[in-house]
Amino acid sequence: MRIARFETTGRVSRVSFGIVEGDQVTPINGDLFNLPLRLSGVQPSGAAVPLSSVKLLPPVVPRTMYAVALNYPSHLGEQVAAPRPEIFVKGLNSLAGPADKIILPEGSERVDYEGEIVVVIGRRCKKASVEDALSYVYGYTCGNDVSARDWQRGDRQWFRGKSCDTFGVLGPWIVDGLDAENIELCTRLNGEEVQHCNSREMVNSIAETISFISQFATLDAGDVIFTGTSGQPRQMKPGDVVEVDVGGVGVLHNEVIADPVPSNWTDKR
Amino acid sequence: MRIARFETTGRVSRVSFGIVEGDQVTPINGDLFNLPLRLSGVQPSGAAVPLSSVKLLPPVVPRTMYAVALNYPSHLGEQVAAPRPEIFVKGLNSLAGPADKIILPEGSERVDYEGEIVVVIGRRCKKASVEDALSYVYGYTCGNDVSARDWQRGDRQWFRGKSCDTFGVLGPWIVDGLDAENIELCTRLNGEEVQHCNSREMVNSIAETISFISQFATLDAGDVIFTGTSGQPRQMKPGDVVEVDVGGVGVLHNEVIADPVPSNWTDKR
Repeated sequence: MRIARFETTGRVSRVSFGIVEGDQVTPINGDLFNLPLRLSGVQPSGAAVPLSSVKLLPPVVPRTMYAVALNYPSHLGEQVAAPRPEIFVKGLNSLAGPADKIILPEGSERVDYEGEIVVVIGRRCKKASVEDALSYVYGYTCGNDVSARDWQRGDRQWFRGKSCDTFGVLGPWIVDGLDAENIELCTRLNGEEVQHCNSREMVNSIAETISFISQFATLDAGDVIFTGTSGQPRQMKPGDVVEVDVGGVGVLHNEVIADPVPSNWTDKR
Repeated sequence: MRIARFETTGRVSRVSFGIVEGDQVTPINGDLFNLPLRLSGVQPSGAAVPLSSVKLLPPVVPRTMYAVALNYPSHLGEQVAAPRPEIFVKGLNSLAGPADKIILPEGSERVDYEGEIVVVIGRRCKKASVEDALSYVYGYTCGNDVSARDWQRGDRQWFRGKSCDTFGVLGPWIVDGLDAENIELCTRLNGEEVQHCNSREMVNSIAETISFISQFATLDAGDVIFTGTSGQPRQMKPGDVVEVDVGGVGVLHNEVIADPVPSNWTDKR
């Protein structure tokens, strides 16, 4: 099942979750992540409308966005894999969706896409074993873990590198029922395929990553985990179009623009 | 004015914001951070009740918790100050309040308190100048930026070091009207003063920190910024009591316990 979150753009704008079938979406009542893990019993709250008539939002507003660094051998390069997942968190300010443009912040010399498979948690989870971890998954969506590479390398922590506004892109919707060990991921830059991998190549499996995070952090329904990128991502320029295509989910498509508002910060020393 | 967030513990538990006067709290209607910046016009929604009869919660649930590293000369030690604030984000899972115990996670050899002055943002803020930055402040509260020092040093990013459950303690309430350039901060461990400083000693002033973050991240009403710790914090042990005392605000008091639930993660390599 494909679950989107969207805004109707009539005289009164309204935000709903909805079930996507073909090129239509049927709104459902309530907040998805206050419902039980599975969607049985969900009631439509209105008639189906064409997807083209609504604005798709990030399919979920997580409490916390977790991410894994260095989770594909092809991205590790010469580096040795750590004995455990390397986790970081992205600020919620960075959340963006399928209808948003990715903004290249002033001052960074190099902002890369990172196409990723994103896990959406379905129910509260603390200290899950690796064996039980997948039972906490609601579904999957596409993610772009946008990264200002120069700031990521030069700053003490990855705030500017990973958490600028629009650096945490999710969408277009959530799909349940996928096999965590066999999800294809493909990224295209201006139509050219620039990244292609499968979740089975991950250094830490999705189950291992969930289990590890949950030893330290209570995962909540609606929380998301960006599961890492493969290969060597390329730089994005204003006017580019990035597509993150997760097999069985769909395509997250975003345009890239330069930040139109000038900075008013001057370094001190 | 002192603004708390609390839960009444009668037959039906209810979460409210309220105005604290003396040892009483008067509930007010609505979500504080959907109200205008200042509290003029707020209506009481019930009679004053004794503080001792309610459970104080974190005074705000931020969208994002920002924090500044190395923001006092006494904490920098031999390190040279960066030309800009060193920002990181704490996962929302780590949020805890005055009634919570700080949990020492299994496996860390050293978990320290970090007493901090915390800024609470009052209205949406993007690219604020240093001159305008303080106009976005709602008020201040006490914070404990609990830090697992071994994980902070050994991991690639500070997820385990700074974002374990209960590592982001806020409270007991928010106070407005303080002078950002002259706020006293004092921390006590089991009654002994172990940290004492003033916001005027900060490497980056509160206005500079807000301005800097807002160049990259849209600060939302209710977002918080931990403004850094002074000196060399000490380790906490089970049974310890930590008090963070911010002049003009009050005292955030928490007990420390060992994690009662065993881990079920084993390192892989």
